[in-house]
Amino acid sequence: MDKPLILVTNDDGIFAPGIKALVDVVKKIGTPVVVAPDKPQSGQGHAITITEPLRLKKVEQFDDVLSYACSGTPVDCVKLAKNILFKDQTIDLCVSGVNHGSNAALNILYSGTMSAAMEASIEGINSIGFSLLDFSFEADFTAAMHYGEILINRLLKEKQKGILLNVNIPKLPMSDIKGMKICKQGEGRWVENYKENIDPRGGVYYWLDGDFEKGQYDKDSDLNALKDGYISIVPSQHDLTDYKNMKNLSYLEV
Amino acid sequence: MDKPLILVTNDDGIFAPGIKALVDVVKKIGTPVVVAPDKPQSGQGHAITITEPLRLKKVEQFDDVLSYACSGTPVDCVKLAKNILFKDQTIDLCVSGVNHGSNAALNILYSGTMSAAMEASIEGINSIGFSLLDFSFEADFTAAMHYGEILINRLLKEKQKGILLNVNIPKLPMSDIKGMKICKQGEGRWVENYKENIDPRGGVYYWLDGDFEKGQYDKDSDLNALKDGYISIVPSQHDLTDYKNMKNLSYLEV
Repeated sequence: MDKPLILVTNDDGIFAPGIKALVDVVKKIGTPVVVAPDKPQSGQGHAITITEPLRLKKVEQFDDVLSYACSGTPVDCVKLAKNILFKDQTIDLCVSGVNHGSNAALNILYSGTMSAAMEASIEGINSIGFSLLDFSFEADFTAAMHYGEILINRLLKEKQKGILLNVNIPKLPMSDIKGMKICKQGEGRWVENYKENIDPRGGVYYWLDGDFEKGQYDKDSDLNALKDGYISIVPSQHDLTDYKNMKNLSYLEV
Repeated sequence: MDKPLILVTNDDGIFAPGIKALVDVVKKIGTPVVVAPDKPQSGQGHAITITEPLRLKKVEQFDDVLSYACSGTPVDCVKLAKNILFKDQTIDLCVSGVNHGSNAALNILYSGTMSAAMEASIEGINSIGFSLLDFSFEADFTAAMHYGEILINRLLKEKQKGILLNVNIPKLPMSDIKGMKICKQGEGRWVENYKENIDPRGGVYYWLDGDFEKGQYDKDSDLNALKDGYISIVPSQHDLTDYKNMKNLSYLEV
């Protein structure tokens, strides 16, 4: 059997250490191809570029790995990979990350890493977004790589199509990680605390800052698993319908 | 009772006709306050601005309505409204739009209009995103305004908090609209067709184009309701967990 073709992307940009770690894992399993932003694109969510042209530049960033730097968002990277670069090939899996920082709980909504993975899953490609709870560029990716390899190997055998996994790895030494747990998305989120300041020309500006508010530690949530030293896996999907409320809100119909 | 404070935003920018229509509706019901992007921000999804400062500029865009143009994304607008501009007031409702173009089906994921409304709903503010299936800046907003008024009045009385409605209005004369229907999110989406071209300096670029593929016309979907001449209302939410698959994927645990 041919080696599986695995698309690697991220939102921290093609030069971030996290994507290098992921490429190294994928090399052991299949053929990695990289299409990633040419600059950091954190917080881009599911943004796409529609009012500007997009560029793809072939780069020699990883040894013997076909790699492109893209001028657009993480979702643009996946769209261009699917529709331009590899339109005549089957992409067997998409992996995104390893993100520098948590995408647990509501962070999934703002995360370019997860939106890229979701875009691939919408196209029927099984996808995993990996995030390490460590913003540092000197972060230790050992555990992410070890467990990532297990997950990628397993998901390559999965029969369903369009599976999307949001995987978060606690900032712990390998030996302290208790395992991986299937979880639901927690309700925790960032609470904004804008810094207000004056620019050199006297104009007021605001800069987003904030603290992660842990929210409720629901027993089955990713936040709880991470707190307990587990890697969290949230099976995710793109249907936002609030099915439980459809009946309650039927009075809105005219 | 005081008039309700209603936050109005959009993704087409503060100068788009659609937001003017929405402000006019809100004026009849409560006190509108506008915080909207200073330029078009379509396709921004749930993007937030984290690597740049944000600006707010007070503008006289609508008669007797406190209005700010924001340099950021639609989600930034809602965050700044909640955390800076109106942090000491209760925002009773958030309305976003009227968007020029459909946000039915999977378009919700890419839509700045809907992401702004979702951001407000995450904060516990009931929210409605309105979209008219007409890209033209000369679009007729009569039906959007008529049914919008009904929905806003009803949602102001809703007991639940954090309700999010994705409302799409077909491009039809008022008299041909059959009513409003509670629906689920359809599976239709854009199929990309990138235009490849050469710039004046010889560089290759790609520009996103595409056709809306209608997908399956599930009986209860927004796409089906719109096709049949109804306004679609999809109650939406922000928990992306694929609950149905949690058990199936438990073999991924280690």
